[in-house]
Amino acid sequence: METEKMLDAEMSRRSLLINGGKCVVGVAGIAALVSAVPGLAEAKGTSYEKFQYKKVNPEEAAKIAYENYFDLWCASTVLKGIFDPLAKNVGGPYKTFPIESIRWAHGGYAGWGTLCGTLIGAGNAIGLITGNIETAEAMTNDLAFYYANTVMPVYKPAKAIKAEIKTTTKADTPVCHISVGKWMKAENVAFLTNERAERCARVAATIASKTVEMLNAWHAAGGKYTPVNKPLANVLNNGITSQNNCVECHGTNVPTPPAAKS
Amino acid sequence: METEKMLDAEMSRRSLLINGGKCVVGVAGIAALVSAVPGLAEAKGTSYEKFQYKKVNPEEAAKIAYENYFDLWCASTVLKGIFDPLAKNVGGPYKTFPIESIRWAHGGYAGWGTLCGTLIGAGNAIGLITGNIETAEAMTNDLAFYYANTVMPVYKPAKAIKAEIKTTTKADTPVCHISVGKWMKAENVAFLTNERAERCARVAATIASKTVEMLNAWHAAGGKYTPVNKPLANVLNNGITSQNNCVECHGTNVPTPPAAKS
Repeated sequence: METEKMLDAEMSRRSLLINGGKCVVGVAGIAALVSAVPGLAEAKGTSYEKFQYKKVNPEEAAKIAYENYFDLWCASTVLKGIFDPLAKNVGGPYKTFPIESIRWAHGGYAGWGTLCGTLIGAGNAIGLITGNIETAEAMTNDLAFYYANTVMPVYKPAKAIKAEIKTTTKADTPVCHISVGKWMKAENVAFLTNERAERCARVAATIASKTVEMLNAWHAAGGKYTPVNKPLANVLNNGITSQNNCVECHGTNVPTPPAAKS
Repeated sequence: METEKMLDAEMSRRSLLINGGKCVVGVAGIAALVSAVPGLAEAKGTSYEKFQYKKVNPEEAAKIAYENYFDLWCASTVLKGIFDPLAKNVGGPYKTFPIESIRWAHGGYAGWGTLCGTLIGAGNAIGLITGNIETAEAMTNDLAFYYANTVMPVYKPAKAIKAEIKTTTKADTPVCHISVGKWMKAENVAFLTNERAERCARVAATIASKTVEMLNAWHAAGGKYTPVNKPLANVLNNGITSQNNCVECHGTNVPTPPAAKS
């Protein structure tokens, strides 16, 4: 079997979490895997341990992310929402980490419209805090599922900074271009408007809040994380890195990736 | 003008680089902007300055990225390719920075197929090293243009680690799913194959090398970076965060984003 050969040849046991080949791993199985397998960080004794975690109030993280969006934009403001409370309550590297160093991730990579920058901000925080590559893998996967399937923005500020907005939308994807496009259409506003900026600020707040909820759960469980979602089935089926909603972009003309040779 | 109002209302002078509204800024104009305007980091006195830079050999960065791909995958291995030579020649934070903390960026975000992880690895390095948000913005934009428009992989190892591969392809996008899909089709191999892994390892090497070339040029110019490409025109035209090759995904049925109200 090509798939199994690859699992032997390329993927270490650590990567089973996301490249389970033909083994359809249930949620419980994934959870066990995440907690049982040490990450590269632990094995190599990196400086991960410096990013100690204490429970963060999701509402506080959301408020910080929301209020700083207009200066920092999506990726950096999520990182700030998560790190600022920790800088206050833990100190250490949270006090000096350059929040602005990932601002380039806004707008789907300097405006290229690919991955929503909020998820890069959250991913960086998750990677540094959890210090475990499997936990970070499972958590970012769950966060992408949350982003794609949640009617957003969830966060509502006590007082809008830029504009009152009327609509919420479900992106069905973590892609910036599609997420913001669906909302712009529903709200009937252009990209460079106060309304669009307000919406993205609230999405950043929503993602900062959700990330902190995940980190709090992980921390409360002694550094174990129970994934909600399985890795994307397309990779398990030996297809290609993607979601399953192919027709949304491709219409009825969905390309077929080359099949595995058995 | 809605656009101009937004530029006043939402965007600071720092953001002119990428949100120039109706001012069509030429390359020389952008370059002047990048070098003349201090970044948030400098203004706030963060710890950016700890990531001191010395010229890195692009071939060395490429080789490290290539050889470590099979353990670290795309994002982290690019970061390693850039950081390892600096850990040796500069030391400081390069020696302890947790390279593995961004492994979640592989496969377009934990396998979701969005932004190629190599560009997230490069972006993190660029942001930490340059310590200037405008420089990082311009450099990541140029890197996305390079990624989209270059027949890849460029890097060829002295000896292939996983497999000999025959084809090279131009992605026309920084999106993982499309980039790898076009190559898989040309090479006629499935995702979980040694050939595909070999190709992504060489792409990672290519991006590590290109990033180091950019950083070397920036460093040789005393911390000034001359952008090659303008920010994406779609944002300038008040459209939506994206490239201009709409029909590749959308076919002839390209949605029209709501127009700006003048």
